[in-house]
Amino acid sequence: MKYAIIGTGAIGGYYGARLAQSGQEVHFLLHSDYDYVKEHGLQVDSCDGSFHLDHINAYRTTSDMPAVDVVLVCLKTINNHLLDTLLPPLLPSSNTSHPSPVVVLIQNGIGVEADVESRFPGIQLVAGLAFICSGKTEPGRVNHQCYGHINFGNYSCRDEVRMQALLDEFNAAGIKAGQVEYEEARWKKAVWNMPFNGMTVALNTQTDLLLKNPDTRQLIYDQMMEVIGAARHLGVTGIDASFADLMIQMTDEMTPYSPSMKLDFDFHRPMEIHYLYTRPIEIARRAGFRMPKLEMLEAELKFLSKNL
Amino acid sequence: MKYAIIGTGAIGGYYGARLAQSGQEVHFLLHSDYDYVKEHGLQVDSCDGSFHLDHINAYRTTSDMPAVDVVLVCLKTINNHLLDTLLPPLLPSSNTSHPSPVVVLIQNGIGVEADVESRFPGIQLVAGLAFICSGKTEPGRVNHQCYGHINFGNYSCRDEVRMQALLDEFNAAGIKAGQVEYEEARWKKAVWNMPFNGMTVALNTQTDLLLKNPDTRQLIYDQMMEVIGAARHLGVTGIDASFADLMIQMTDEMTPYSPSMKLDFDFHRPMEIHYLYTRPIEIARRAGFRMPKLEMLEAELKFLSKNL
Repeated sequence: MKYAIIGTGAIGGYYGARLAQSGQEVHFLLHSDYDYVKEHGLQVDSCDGSFHLDHINAYRTTSDMPAVDVVLVCLKTINNHLLDTLLPPLLPSSNTSHPSPVVVLIQNGIGVEADVESRFPGIQLVAGLAFICSGKTEPGRVNHQCYGHINFGNYSCRDEVRMQALLDEFNAAGIKAGQVEYEEARWKKAVWNMPFNGMTVALNTQTDLLLKNPDTRQLIYDQMMEVIGAARHLGVTGIDASFADLMIQMTDEMTPYSPSMKLDFDFHRPMEIHYLYTRPIEIARRAGFRMPKLEMLEAELKFLSKNL
Repeated sequence: MKYAIIGTGAIGGYYGARLAQSGQEVHFLLHSDYDYVKEHGLQVDSCDGSFHLDHINAYRTTSDMPAVDVVLVCLKTINNHLLDTLLPPLLPSSNTSHPSPVVVLIQNGIGVEADVESRFPGIQLVAGLAFICSGKTEPGRVNHQCYGHINFGNYSCRDEVRMQALLDEFNAAGIKAGQVEYEEARWKKAVWNMPFNGMTVALNTQTDLLLKNPDTRQLIYDQMMEVIGAARHLGVTGIDASFADLMIQMTDEMTPYSPSMKLDFDFHRPMEIHYLYTRPIEIARRAGFRMPKLEMLEAELKFLSKNL
């Protein structure tokens, strides 16, 4: 299939380069790195084998791209307002017969698909849940440290053939890809994301120290149970208290880790508070479920973000 | 009456010196400042008029003090374990006819009286709620910046004559003193103390900035409502939502302020987490009322206290 990558950073650069390396036709949207990448190509330093793409299809604007089958949106959600101008050129106008592309949001949080759909009614959306440690260290250079698998959850994609092709082509490119139930997958990821992203910022620490202290270990557990409570209240059945135990046990076994929000905070970049906290808290509250400790964390993060 | 001051610091030094200056017999317990004060006396720099006491009754141990009518406990609550050795010499042995003194705990938090009573059954306790800005800047020197009034709440004092004398003698010494209902007074003070003490530490800020940010302003309000909810659940009727509005309005009108816990944190001194958070949260929880946002704040403070 033909792919468009919106956001050629740590995530989009990695997955896009893997797909291109495996022979797919990939079109990369670039911003500040455009000139460098146009001339020098893209370097991927990867735990699964490094490689270099001498020539990539680089664009400054999506208007110059050809029609594609799949759009991978790999922006930070704080930039999702840009989709208002970035997406339309990739969506078919009403007088063409080209089918609407599958738009995969490889993004963090809860509510991103609903918000994009409300701006583009009828759009075929898939959630991409990436489990990857990757960074962009300099122009045209992606540093993929570990993991890398991705799960796709179908939000509003009607084209099952292309949905399957997406899975197959990712796997063929050496990226372990699976399909999951959309709501359950987004909420399961939030069980880990909501406590650890914010708490490492609020207490200026890492995952291991939060779990070594018995008081914050209990707090992390309580916050996980708030997410699980919200998910179950919203009808997501495949998730219960044992999942919190599993996430804590998994994190105990990880090396000390700074989640993406902590890195954003440390490097004075805007934090993804809206889709990691505000929207899920709002969605749960509207359905009659409160998450008081995560509400408090949201307020603390908003306070701290004022000084970034 | 005869007074013993346990803890001749910013609070005990001020109130004790005022009482001595007005002609009462006051016996001061001193620790590190003993030699200096024995030789040079006690200096009070006060917004209400400075003065110097050339000679004070200074002691290294309560065993050397004579029998007194009133004991003012002015320790930080983190030192309350010292009462196990400091109080017994001041309490009458069973073979004397001297009446048991009134013990006034001029301390922060909830549960201090209950804990002291459980260690000294039958003790006559009064809560002292001081509204004062005072510091001890150097040995033998108290700096009283503003306010200074004190409210007494009767916890287990059976001697109404001495309770009245306490009020009269404080007022005669130029300290505005009133009598309040014990439970209501302790919980009302907690409505301000619990949100502001901890949040200024957790977000490394002052009262004004917490109220200027709409998210933390709402959080402070929510935390106040948790305290009010707990108090009402415990049968304290004279307190409702309007008291939270009043406390926020009052704090809006104050100059930017660092509560005592923030000063303790900044100067790397232990914080009074136990009686400001742990005990009231525990008392409310045992009665079936949860304070989730203050539970979270307690956990954050315990985490931060590990690095003091």
